[in-house]
Amino acid sequence: MNSKTINHIYKQLVSKLEERSRLGGVMATMHWDQEVIMPKGAVDNRSKQMAALAGVLHEKSIDSDFGRLIDKLVNADPVNFTEVEQCNINEAKREYDLETQIPKELIQEIAELSSRGHQIWTKAREENKFEDFAPTLERLIFLKKKWARFAFPDLDPYDANIDIYERGMRVEYLTPIFDKLKKELIPFISAIKNSSFSPDTDFLKGNFPIEKQKTLGTIISKDIGFDYDKGRMDVSVHPFCGGGHPTDVRITTRYQSENFIESLFAVIHETGHGLYEQGRMSGFLDLPVSESLTMAIHESQSLFWERMIAQSLYFCDYYRDLFMKTFPDKLKGISLDRFYRAINKCEPSFIRVEADEVTYPIHIIIRYEIEKDLFNERIKVKNLPNIWNDKMEEYFGIRPKSDSEGLLQDVHWSGGAFGYFPSYTLGAMYACQFYSKMLLDINDIPKKIKAGNFLCVKKWLNDNIHQKGRLYSTDNLILNVTGNKLDPVYFIDYLKRKYSEIYKL
Amino acid sequence: MNSKTINHIYKQLVSKLEERSRLGGVMATMHWDQEVIMPKGAVDNRSKQMAALAGVLHEKSIDSDFGRLIDKLVNADPVNFTEVEQCNINEAKREYDLETQIPKELIQEIAELSSRGHQIWTKAREENKFEDFAPTLERLIFLKKKWARFAFPDLDPYDANIDIYERGMRVEYLTPIFDKLKKELIPFISAIKNSSFSPDTDFLKGNFPIEKQKTLGTIISKDIGFDYDKGRMDVSVHPFCGGGHPTDVRITTRYQSENFIESLFAVIHETGHGLYEQGRMSGFLDLPVSESLTMAIHESQSLFWERMIAQSLYFCDYYRDLFMKTFPDKLKGISLDRFYRAINKCEPSFIRVEADEVTYPIHIIIRYEIEKDLFNERIKVKNLPNIWNDKMEEYFGIRPKSDSEGLLQDVHWSGGAFGYFPSYTLGAMYACQFYSKMLLDINDIPKKIKAGNFLCVKKWLNDNIHQKGRLYSTDNLILNVTGNKLDPVYFIDYLKRKYSEIYKL
Repeated sequence: MNSKTINHIYKQLVSKLEERSRLGGVMATMHWDQEVIMPKGAVDNRSKQMAALAGVLHEKSIDSDFGRLIDKLVNADPVNFTEVEQCNINEAKREYDLETQIPKELIQEIAELSSRGHQIWTKAREENKFEDFAPTLERLIFLKKKWARFAFPDLDPYDANIDIYERGMRVEYLTPIFDKLKKELIPFISAIKNSSFSPDTDFLKGNFPIEKQKTLGTIISKDIGFDYDKGRMDVSVHPFCGGGHPTDVRITTRYQSENFIESLFAVIHETGHGLYEQGRMSGFLDLPVSESLTMAIHESQSLFWERMIAQSLYFCDYYRDLFMKTFPDKLKGISLDRFYRAINKCEPSFIRVEADEVTYPIHIIIRYEIEKDLFNERIKVKNLPNIWNDKMEEYFGIRPKSDSEGLLQDVHWSGGAFGYFPSYTLGAMYACQFYSKMLLDINDIPKKIKAGNFLCVKKWLNDNIHQKGRLYSTDNLILNVTGNKLDPVYFIDYLKRKYSEIYKL
Repeated sequence: MNSKTINHIYKQLVSKLEERSRLGGVMATMHWDQEVIMPKGAVDNRSKQMAALAGVLHEKSIDSDFGRLIDKLVNADPVNFTEVEQCNINEAKREYDLETQIPKELIQEIAELSSRGHQIWTKAREENKFEDFAPTLERLIFLKKKWARFAFPDLDPYDANIDIYERGMRVEYLTPIFDKLKKELIPFISAIKNSSFSPDTDFLKGNFPIEKQKTLGTIISKDIGFDYDKGRMDVSVHPFCGGGHPTDVRITTRYQSENFIESLFAVIHETGHGLYEQGRMSGFLDLPVSESLTMAIHESQSLFWERMIAQSLYFCDYYRDLFMKTFPDKLKGISLDRFYRAINKCEPSFIRVEADEVTYPIHIIIRYEIEKDLFNERIKVKNLPNIWNDKMEEYFGIRPKSDSEGLLQDVHWSGGAFGYFPSYTLGAMYACQFYSKMLLDINDIPKKIKAGNFLCVKKWLNDNIHQKGRLYSTDNLILNVTGNKLDPVYFIDYLKRKYSEIYKL
């Protein structure tokens, strides 16, 4: 093929990819609508509408014309393509292979069981009956192992499941990292627990009018760079970042009048996700090259803003006046120091989503170790309640009184999402490692945050991460940006320094 | 074919029709989102997403498998089908023929010119330059005449254009009806104009807080039967009734703090549309048989609630206390009689959408006569400004000072929608004829409305109209429901009786 022909074929691929991206954007907008807007009587109908659209997307994804275009481009001389073009071709191939290599019946069985599994899990959690959920969990693991052999025949099945969320990540690489976290954090958490100091958090409970919380969240999300001309903020049961396009990014939060911190931090967290989406490389917004790299990199962006920035002393310092002006009844007279310690309280607890940044990784490691052993058949589903509770006791010194506050707490497994959990803690580690580098790249970050100058922070993340899309593997991105591969030491040092100071260890 | 085979083929048709309906529902929800929710920066992207989805819908509509199924069913012995099944088959055939008989290039040219036409018209209206819009209008008429020859080769081109909105309606039938309206209403409007009485409407202008207007609209729309478990009410630039399904009906209004009547009547109008959608025959919600019959029948439902009910003395009587309690500053001490006359003020004016129910039909007839003559080449586009203004002067005794308040005021022609206008006044006449029959069917309607008992009204409309879907032609529906074919006398008598009393003629 001459380069003109190749160029023509590439253009055909681009329009197919763009069409898919646009239909995917419609799907995402409908999903947002379902969670935020839709009247409750429309539930049944909506699931049928979503299924019809998913069917169209699937037809487009396995279209043999699409496959032929990809084949021709994959076999063409790479010299014909720019870095961006090559990335789009590789991404198209990965997706096409994934869509076509799995038998249709297997996809359907997983989809159906995931949907049914959600209902079964909801009921089992309500009634605190793990045994009602156990057969579904067992079957889902069986199916996702089978899936793995079709999807990534060269990978160990658990690695294959991880690869969907965190491309290139392997158990072999992750286990030593998590072991190091355990080794360092478990005794550190214990020291915190035994510390004579405990932050006073009473003033964070009270009556914080929701309208005021909303105004506060809007101001702060704008300050840190969320563009409301290309996005919205609304309310949903679980906060998330959705929307159908980088020009239409929709974050959500939820409000409780007795607690403003939870809602505000959800806004900041989702804003971090939103900035990644709004910051994607223009010119390629409907092509895979501009998409977010992995779940963990996405999470690194939300955690960056939530933890490295919003939970810092400097951020509290800058917004102290606004907080006090917004909620004078509760916050007037509270010193910066008291406020900062209160929002950074650390304590082992049963529920992952409520955990602080020091104990959170341990929650993840428990799930990771269990998933790994389930996939390797070193443990059995029926023994999970004891295994879970023993680990909680070993790592945290606390034991759940029920499975509902133990291994039934998370939705993930009921939908067949195994290998997802590590992304959360990988994200936390990436965020920390990025921050270390940012401190070297930009003068006086603390001073800038203290002055409410967040633009330089956002720009650094835009330039170094958001704009890179899928051009590099995660390993290479981390190496390019920070000069090092992923190293848990950044994260461990950060936690130890910060919390030793807070807990006066 | 035996009946089992036929049944199997029918089932295949049903699933194709349902798929199309569901994807159409997604399209409608995305359209609602665009008008109500979408951030402004997403405009470009959204039009691409909508185009991708429209492409999918078009592919599905012209799918030859679909055509083969329809052919087999159309040629099967009708004894095999219920009334509902026969209707779905006929509707599928009509749609398929329409989608496949028009050359693709013609569809594309019309779509492109309609989209461009909207921008050209917007600018021309702003700058009051009809000559800038004239060539587009000329081309659109040419294209829609060409389209008519493919779509309905047996019909006169203007009849073909009407048929899209008001199936079965013909110029031959409509012209005498509109002539009768003109003959009766023009002198009547003149008598009103010359009457010594003029309602005092000052108290309808003032400061009506938007939050209170919203609460009022919500209460009244609920009272008359809108189900908020299967619908929503929001704000958009132009009020409309949208949403993606009978279980997800979304009405909108707009608020001005200086005028609550306009917004409230928009809510009631759109609620009328919404009740039609929510009232569709269950069991067939994703099939054509349950869809609304025509634009005019849809409009008859919104006008029924807006005019026959909400503009009546009885309705004003029932809500008088609530109105006064909601807006005491302006409404306290205003008698029922003054209020009723104020909201029924009649006066010739330039703008159709602001017209009262007596003068409105004349606005429509002007447009109808012009469209008819344009299609028959009895008049030329370049002469339209004078033709329009002469008609306004002849019928109303007023002459627009600019084309912006004359023939450039409406969006319809810029999108190639010719033959749509008659639906508005057909709707008004149907509404009135339905109401006459309802008065015979239900005892003491005025008393019931005065007592806020709207359920019987809604039920009558549900049973007689909404639940009939597309089972009958409009002619047959009117005949079945009212015992007569469409007769403008009901409408004329209603207007004369009501406004003679108001204007003391």
